[in-house]
Parts: sequence; structure tokens; C-alpha cells
Amino acid sequence: MRIVDIIDKKKQGKELSKEEINYFISSLTDNSMPDYQASAWLMAVWFRSMSEEETAHLTDAIIKSGEVIHFGELSKKIIDKHSTGGVGDKVTITLLPLLAAAGVPIAKLSGKGLGHTGGTIDKLESIPNFTTSLSIEELHRQVEEIGVAIGQQTQNLTPADGKLYALRDVTATVDSLPLIASSVVSKKIASGADNIILDVKYGSGAFMKTPEDAVKLAQLMVNIGKKLGKRIIAVVTSMEEPLGRAVGNSIEIIESLEFLKGHITSGDIAELTYDFATIALTQTGMFIDEETARSYLKELIHTGKAIEKFRELIKAQGGVPEVIEDYTRFPQAKFKVEVKSEHAGYINKIDAYKIAYGCKLLGAGREKKTDLIDYSVGVFLNKKTGEQVREGDILYTIYSNDEEKTSACKKYCNEAYEYVNEKPDLKKQIYKIITQ
Amino acid sequence: MRIVDIIDKKKQGKELSKEEINYFISSLTDNSMPDYQASAWLMAVWFRSMSEEETAHLTDAIIKSGEVIHFGELSKKIIDKHSTGGVGDKVTITLLPLLAAAGVPIAKLSGKGLGHTGGTIDKLESIPNFTTSLSIEELHRQVEEIGVAIGQQTQNLTPADGKLYALRDVTATVDSLPLIASSVVSKKIASGADNIILDVKYGSGAFMKTPEDAVKLAQLMVNIGKKLGKRIIAVVTSMEEPLGRAVGNSIEIIESLEFLKGHITSGDIAELTYDFATIALTQTGMFIDEETARSYLKELIHTGKAIEKFRELIKAQGGVPEVIEDYTRFPQAKFKVEVKSEHAGYINKIDAYKIAYGCKLLGAGREKKTDLIDYSVGVFLNKKTGEQVREGDILYTIYSNDEEKTSACKKYCNEAYEYVNEKPDLKKQIYKIITQ
Repeated sequence: MRIVDIIDKKKQGKELSKEEINYFISSLTDNSMPDYQASAWLMAVWFRSMSEEETAHLTDAIIKSGEVIHFGELSKKIIDKHSTGGVGDKVTITLLPLLAAAGVPIAKLSGKGLGHTGGTIDKLESIPNFTTSLSIEELHRQVEEIGVAIGQQTQNLTPADGKLYALRDVTATVDSLPLIASSVVSKKIASGADNIILDVKYGSGAFMKTPEDAVKLAQLMVNIGKKLGKRIIAVVTSMEEPLGRAVGNSIEIIESLEFLKGHITSGDIAELTYDFATIALTQTGMFIDEETARSYLKELIHTGKAIEKFRELIKAQGGVPEVIEDYTRFPQAKFKVEVKSEHAGYINKIDAYKIAYGCKLLGAGREKKTDLIDYSVGVFLNKKTGEQVREGDILYTIYSNDEEKTSACKKYCNEAYEYVNEKPDLKKQIYKIITQ
Repeated sequence: MRIVDIIDKKKQGKELSKEEINYFISSLTDNSMPDYQASAWLMAVWFRSMSEEETAHLTDAIIKSGEVIHFGELSKKIIDKHSTGGVGDKVTITLLPLLAAAGVPIAKLSGKGLGHTGGTIDKLESIPNFTTSLSIEELHRQVEEIGVAIGQQTQNLTPADGKLYALRDVTATVDSLPLIASSVVSKKIASGADNIILDVKYGSGAFMKTPEDAVKLAQLMVNIGKKLGKRIIAVVTSMEEPLGRAVGNSIEIIESLEFLKGHITSGDIAELTYDFATIALTQTGMFIDEETARSYLKELIHTGKAIEKFRELIKAQGGVPEVIEDYTRFPQAKFKVEVKSEHAGYINKIDAYKIAYGCKLLGAGREKKTDLIDYSVGVFLNKKTGEQVREGDILYTIYSNDEEKTSACKKYCNEAYEYVNEKPDLKKQIYKIITQ
């Protein structure tokens, strides 16, 4: 078998066999194939795409390129929740303690993402002393003891994905459905989960711009899961405006705490968290009726069981649990700038991408793996889509450590807001749920 | 400017600017761009192709990536002839002394090609002591003295082309019209010629399989030449069967000598050599009337002026001129195997690719630049297309130094021949001539 023939076959639009895909991925993993052949193949895949069968083989080959975590018997019950990434998306953080409180064991392994704001792990690490450097044994033990744990993906998991992703990033081949699907699903399966809930975002702040494209990706991932014997539920959700009001790191944790304490009972964060938790409870067979599941989940918030589970999680992973009551224990930004509206009317739209870009300028994210994140900065949206605003009302608040960066951020945030005279209709967060 | 944006733009099917193409090629040349980005770009070009404007910019950028030879005033008159490569193609060798004898200065720089048989330089170096290692000054002086010289392209010419070609070869991106055209034309222009005759082959033994594809390539190269201020004449010719009767190295020189001595007066080699020479004499304005030009050229053969010019060329480049009278001075093969026909009828077709592959098995070509060529081996076609054959007639002759290789070669050659009962119509060699 020759790599050049595998590239040529894909270039001609023919379907690659399992053996050819395995050979390609193993040659990538053991460095026997030069990167320039891998990148030519990636571009051919971008143009020709892959069948479901090929994508499943690719996913399987990527999984087998490294270590695969086994939780043993526990893994049949464990749920892993993953989002394809959105601005202000803290639903993993609200969902983790809520589901654990409901008796659904959750083990989540995340990567330290590149992006305009930090990933779930970065947000949690804005809690002083909170660590995600757990060994698999520690993760396992913690899930058995308190029902929830969050760790970092090690380099040993899916090394082929790491290499492919690095190449895709610099060769304009990121936006390919089979490459995205195999990357996401391989990491989740290698992380040991048998039940995976995927939040597939669409909109200006997400990778998929239209709901149709997001549904295609979601369906592909569900089907790959089925072919590889894993249960994947994909939920296609809107990311037209940032999720919740806080975009940053520590301020997103604070918003999550507010929800778990029962202080936030409506709006997108509450809606999505309850929706996902309900899906998890019904799809795993714990509850048959959705309404009953939902009432049960609300009880867990009202009785304080959810926030207590989060306290257990913070303690178990070395963090300072006092942040729950005292938000000044989080890293604090030097400046808090309240920006007032110069318009009156209703908010019609808030461009998620522009808000995210503003936060990036503040230092909330990282471009390179080695960049440091400023946990304290971010943007709080005092006004969200559908809300009325008068001239002079506070529109949003910038948390920043640098005056120049504040102005730059403000420019993007101002552009993000769009006004109308009549109250606009609000769309539902969930566009479609796809199960096997 | 970022390379990834240039790749992405081409991937989206948009036209690259001159600045973008220059940046890409200079980043390739100075090694500031990693190969994996170059190969992703090549694959995107394979899928999206390039406009004529882009291809001209690419050609120009490749030319400027290295040394460019200037013959000064002489270059306005100099003709360079290049073939996209065909089996048994020795027309450059017959044309060089003929045109020089006619008073048209010829300077040719060739690369040592990879292929089933050697390139023009390899064939000439089968003449004992003949050398093509001439400096540009030596080449220049020799053209002024005797009107003809042939040298080797150095690594200093079009280094970007060398890099691109090496990558294309291992990433299945060789077969792209703009990449082929820019590669051929850039080398020719960098070699200092202002007037270039390109023989663009089609057929089983050529890169382009159909005349339509060959015309597309030819037209593109003529148009690039025009944009870059050079006069290119492209002649699309058939390579359905090997050209002439000899396929190898020294045996192709012997066939060329036979033509130049006036012993071969009909058939494809005579036809093509006269056609190309006539085009050169009329297109450069030396003659207006084609018939007069053709008669003049025939006179140069009959009077011995052409073969004497070849003798001058051999002497000037250190070779043993006695090979002209004594063919035993060439390297001799150990075995000469005459293969007889088992069929009767007419030859309908001889698959050029299969004959070439048979010669490769004998050792007539090279796969890697470091491979040694066996000058003495090859296949002589005693019967060509359109000729009658009886059972027991000698069909072809194998010159070989190894009995096992002889059998392997014989298998391919036998498969190459196709018979019919009625004398088939012969097609003309030249399909189309494309001028500016």
C-alpha cells in the first residue's frame, strides 16, 4: 500500500477501505508519513468529503491511535456532555452538578481549547486552586465517590487527532464535516464514555453557520456512534447570541453559580440546562415522562442539592469552595466599565462572534497553547435579545485590566447590538434533537 | 499576508492575485513555508485549477525563484525545442543539427528526466565521452561558433519548480494543467530562449491521453508565453505508438544518425522533423513559403550538411565522432533477441506505454535521480503500425544484458501489438499547431 495511491483514490472521489484508512492513520501516528502527504489528503477530503462508512473507519482509527480509557462497569452509566463550542456556553458547568445530584454519574475529559474565551476547563480553573490534573484512577475514584469529575485530556488520547487538527488549522481544512465529526467523536469515545450528549451549535458564534449544516454534522456524529457501538444523542441548538449574560471565564462561573443557587429561573441558560438534563434522564431510562424529570430537576435546585454537589466537586478537585458565597474570592478585574445605550427600542440581535472577539481582545482566550488566560476579564450583557432598552440604560459591562483593550472591546460590542422598534419573537434554543 | 489565507482563497475557487502568488512561491523558495502548506495548496489547485492570468503569474514567480539565463542579442534568434515527452521521441536530436545547419541558432538546456527511457541528454550521453556539463559561457560561445549547443539545467534554474515537482509527485497532484504548464514554460523561459517550439504529445505513451486535453495544455502554454513576452509555438502531436523504430538510448541515436545521413526518408520521424523544422523556419520569418523551406531542409540532408553539423556538435561537446560511421563504438548489449510474429495481417496499433514499460524493465530509464541508465538496451520495432506482417516475420528486436529481463520485456512488447486483417488508415502525426 502506498500513501500516494490513497491520496489519489480520495482525490478521484472513490471510497477508501478500512485498511487504507487504518494504514493512513497509523502512518501519521508513527511519523512514517510526511506531513505534506497528510495535508494533501486532508484537502482532497475537504473537496470529496467521506461516506458515513469511511468516517466511522476514520474515527475508529483515530481512537486506536492512542490510549483508550476504560471505566469498566461504570462506563455503561456514565454520561459525557460535549459542546461544539459557543460564546458564553457554560451549560456543561451547570449540567455537571445537576445531573450528578440527580444520580447520573458524569465523567468529563476536556482539552484546553483555543478560542476567543477559555474552554470549560479554563473557566473552572478560574476558581482559585481548582485543578483538573487528575489521573484516570483519581477520576474514576471521584466519580464513584461523589458522582462527578472533570479532567484534562492527555496527549496520550487520540494522538492522530492532535496531528490532524494541527495540520488542518494551517492548511484551511478545518471546515470539513467528516473531519470535524471524527475529531469530536473519537475524543469522546477514547475518553471512556458509552453515553454521549453532544450540543451542536449553529449561528454567528458557532462553527456551523446554519441549522441545516449543524443537523448534517449532528446526524453524522450520531450515526458514527451507532456504527462504533456507542449511544450518541445530538442536540442542535442556536448560538445566534451569546448564551447567558456572562462571556469570559470567572464571570461565567458566577453566572453558573447563580443558576445552581436558584437565582436564575428563566432565559437561555436555565432553558438549555433543564432541556439537556431532561434528555439525559429520559434517554438513559431513569425517567419515562419528561415533565416528571423536569420537576425532579427543579427540586434539586430549589432544595440546594445541585449547588451542594458543585461544592463537593470544587472541594474534591482542590478548589476554594468559599467562592460560592463570596464572589470576591475570584480573580478581580481592575476596571468595570458600564456602557450605556445610545438608542431606545428592543434588542433584535447580539452578534455572538463580535462579543467573543471583544473578549479575546481583553485577554479572555488564547491563540496558542502556551498563551496565558486572564480569568478576570469579560463582558456581561445587561441587555439580551428581546429585552426593552431606553437611552441611557446600561447595555453591557466590560471587565478589563487595560484601558486601551477596553476601548477596542467596546467597539466590537457596540457593533454587535442590533435594535428594532417592536418586541421581536424569540426563537427556541433547541432546533432539533437527533437520537439513534 | 498569511499562507493559510492563500490556501483558503484557492480552496474557495477564488482567483489569487499576483502578490499572493509571488508570496507563496517566495515562501516556498526560501523554505519559510512548510511543505504541508504547499501540498495542501497544490491539491486545492488540482480541484479548482487556475485562470490563465494566475498561471502566468505562477510561471513568472517560478522563473524568478532562481537564476535566469540571458543570451543577450543572440536570444532573439535562438530557438529552443521541447517535447512534453514521448516514447522513442528523438526529434529534438534530429532537429538540433538540421536547424543549426539551416542557420537557426539552437541552445537547449534539458533536465535529466525520470522515465521509462532516458531523456534527450541521456541519449546523447550514450555517445562515448559526450558531455552536457557546459557552463552558460561555454554554451553561449558554442552557439556563436557552431550554431548549436545542448547543456544541462542546473539546480539554480527555477528551484521553486524543483520543489513543487517533488511534492506533486508524492501527493497525486501531477496531473493539473496549470501546474504542468507553469512547470514547462518557466524552465524554458529561465533557460534564456525567446522563441520556443513545444511538442505537446497525446496518446497512450504520453501524459495527455486525448488530443483535446493536449490542445488545452498547448493553448494555455502559448497564452502564458504571450503574457510573459515570449513567442511560443505549440504543436500537438500523436503518441499512440512509439516514434520511429528505436526505443532506448544509443539505438535512438543510431536511428537519428540514419535520418540525418538521408537513409530514412519517410515515416513518422522524417515527417515530424521536417514539420517542426519548417515551422521554425517560417514562424521565425526565415522563409515565407512552407514548400520552399521544406525543400531547403531536404537539401541540407542530401548534401550531408546536417550530419556534418551533428559531427561538429559531437566534437564540440567532447564526444567520439567516429560513432557516426561505426555504430559498434556505442555501448553494446550482450543479447540481441529477434522476436517473430505468431500472427499474420497488418499492425493496427502498438501501445507506446507497454513498449516503454518493457524498455524500463531492461534498464533503459531511471526511477530515481541517482539510478544509472543502461545505454545499450532497448527495443527496435521491425514492424510498425500499418505494415504487413506474415507469421514468422521479425516483429521487434530486444537489446538486453540480462535473460530474465528479456523475458519480462518480451511479455509487455507482445501485449503492445494489435493486428487487423485489412491495412488500417494511418493518422497524421500533427493534430494541431497553435501559435500566438
